[in-house]
Amino acid sequence: MIRPLSRLGQGAILDSWEENIMNDLNDVLILDATLRDGGLVNDHHFEDGFVREIYRANAAAGVDYMEFGYRADKKQFSPEKYGKWKFTSDEDIRATVGDFDVGGKAPKISIMVDVGRCDYLNDIHPKAESPVDLIRVATYIDTMQEAMEMVEYVHRQGYEVTCNLMAVSNYTLPQIKEAVHMMAQSPVIGAYVVDSYGSLYPEQVRELVHLFGEQLISAGKMVGIHAHNNQQCAFANTIEALNAGARMLDGSAYGMGRGAGNCHLEALLGYFNGERYHLEPALDLVENEMIPLKDHGVKWGYNTSYFLTGLTNQHPRTAIAATKDRNIDFREQYDHLPHEKTAVKCL
Amino acid sequence: MIRPLSRLGQGAILDSWEENIMNDLNDVLILDATLRDGGLVNDHHFEDGFVREIYRANAAAGVDYMEFGYRADKKQFSPEKYGKWKFTSDEDIRATVGDFDVGGKAPKISIMVDVGRCDYLNDIHPKAESPVDLIRVATYIDTMQEAMEMVEYVHRQGYEVTCNLMAVSNYTLPQIKEAVHMMAQSPVIGAYVVDSYGSLYPEQVRELVHLFGEQLISAGKMVGIHAHNNQQCAFANTIEALNAGARMLDGSAYGMGRGAGNCHLEALLGYFNGERYHLEPALDLVENEMIPLKDHGVKWGYNTSYFLTGLTNQHPRTAIAATKDRNIDFREQYDHLPHEKTAVKCL
Repeated sequence: MIRPLSRLGQGAILDSWEENIMNDLNDVLILDATLRDGGLVNDHHFEDGFVREIYRANAAAGVDYMEFGYRADKKQFSPEKYGKWKFTSDEDIRATVGDFDVGGKAPKISIMVDVGRCDYLNDIHPKAESPVDLIRVATYIDTMQEAMEMVEYVHRQGYEVTCNLMAVSNYTLPQIKEAVHMMAQSPVIGAYVVDSYGSLYPEQVRELVHLFGEQLISAGKMVGIHAHNNQQCAFANTIEALNAGARMLDGSAYGMGRGAGNCHLEALLGYFNGERYHLEPALDLVENEMIPLKDHGVKWGYNTSYFLTGLTNQHPRTAIAATKDRNIDFREQYDHLPHEKTAVKCL
Repeated sequence: MIRPLSRLGQGAILDSWEENIMNDLNDVLILDATLRDGGLVNDHHFEDGFVREIYRANAAAGVDYMEFGYRADKKQFSPEKYGKWKFTSDEDIRATVGDFDVGGKAPKISIMVDVGRCDYLNDIHPKAESPVDLIRVATYIDTMQEAMEMVEYVHRQGYEVTCNLMAVSNYTLPQIKEAVHMMAQSPVIGAYVVDSYGSLYPEQVRELVHLFGEQLISAGKMVGIHAHNNQQCAFANTIEALNAGARMLDGSAYGMGRGAGNCHLEALLGYFNGERYHLEPALDLVENEMIPLKDHGVKWGYNTSYFLTGLTNQHPRTAIAATKDRNIDFREQYDHLPHEKTAVKCL
């Protein structure tokens, strides 16, 4: 039952980690977050044809879940400003991909709801009326109570539900443990380590996945990982999370996501290629959709400004502004950031 | 004496690895390979002013060694085609930085010699006549015998010497063990795991560093790491090598190096910042020298073509050609590469 994950065969280095974790690669679930996290860089204005190409590629690649967007509250966010995938209604999902033949098994559909930004009592309808399979509840630790109420509601409506702990690098170990405890008692199918600031090193990701796994895996739940690429560690952190026991892995096409972006979906597919997952459809997507999107001026991906906010464990907003302004005075940017690395505060 | 390296404090995850390795961070040595590996993308044509700025920044950052270039054989490589740092004579080093006041402690100076491409009997003079401190002998496994002869010669001339095992991902474990055995018996101060193809994952790097360390550390020698960024793992692999016991760490300014480039020096300095090393001078270098160099058309850094040669464990030459031709038909590129990941063949 215990199977070494090491690509180097004997797995001697990893054996000691693996005694207490589930580690069957068949349990891996890849989620494509291109539209949801990528939408943060273009206010969720995607062409329907683009959405269908992502859907088609995910189906052909064997990606398990495709996240279409947020279900934000239209009383808080203006539909004049934001594209429809900021709100991701059941109707818009159906109208865009409902009749679209992907020529095989389609990915399951997920949406994300932010605590405090979703009118869930009115906007989340019973699963039987919805094309959505999974609803991911994104929260900071200080709103865990409300997050758990949303999790319960979503579960009662019949959906799969996860809880995604954002900006995890910003909290102390006791705070994180307490949040994990709440999630382990809840009806989530899994809980995510979310490195919103791209601040964590692989060693820290492994330790956090272990910390999540201690309570979650014995409760029959999965650990997930959502990485950002500020320090060019998003892919490495994702596969190191896998090695430490995570099974829900987020990627996005060509890494499209806020700021420095996410783990490249094609890197993840390449890592598993030949077994359940297939790389080629994601390569086509990079060529035909993602590079053209960048050429049209949509901005994401690693640069030195994002490196600095990751290094200093800060929200990327100052780096997003610097990138927009083509400001490359990195010393000045660094001077304005706190100089002491504070990822995972207590440790 | 055993000190956990984990930034997460207790280091429980890492303890089992660390029982047999030296792990005092004071032993870390950072080497800047900008001119040497970066020279592979511009045939070593660097302005003297650029070289001095790199030297000044390395001094201010606390970088331990700066590699000025290769000492290639002028009978094999034309000085008409290549810049002087392909040959890196003692005279050229002296003329460029000999009288240059860096305002503090200058980095030690290293050069690289490739087995079969250096007329070492004629071109390496006694250390007493040279500004060079360290000579790094780069070799493939099939030329280990000649590499060891060069190592002996360089050592007898009075230099520090290392052996850098290129394309390590291309060999079987018994081949690597035999090569490490030869290096452990030699007068090298250290031996490098060189992931020339950018093909290794962190888990593999850790295992290779352990394999090197088993024989080298007990012989009083260091393990080094030189990473390429084809799969965006260069920085992660470098700090994971550190966690596994490596102490000689290569970086280059803004990652400048062949193909996808190297571990970003500024990422490495940021990781250690505040102790022996300082980030700010490297940030200035990115702003004032490296981004302008890229803007002038010198090409290096991650793209999907390099990802594919890394994934398939191949030399980056096809990806370099595709990048030059702006060819983004990644499916076709992938079709022409072997599909089975073969890094570290026997395992």
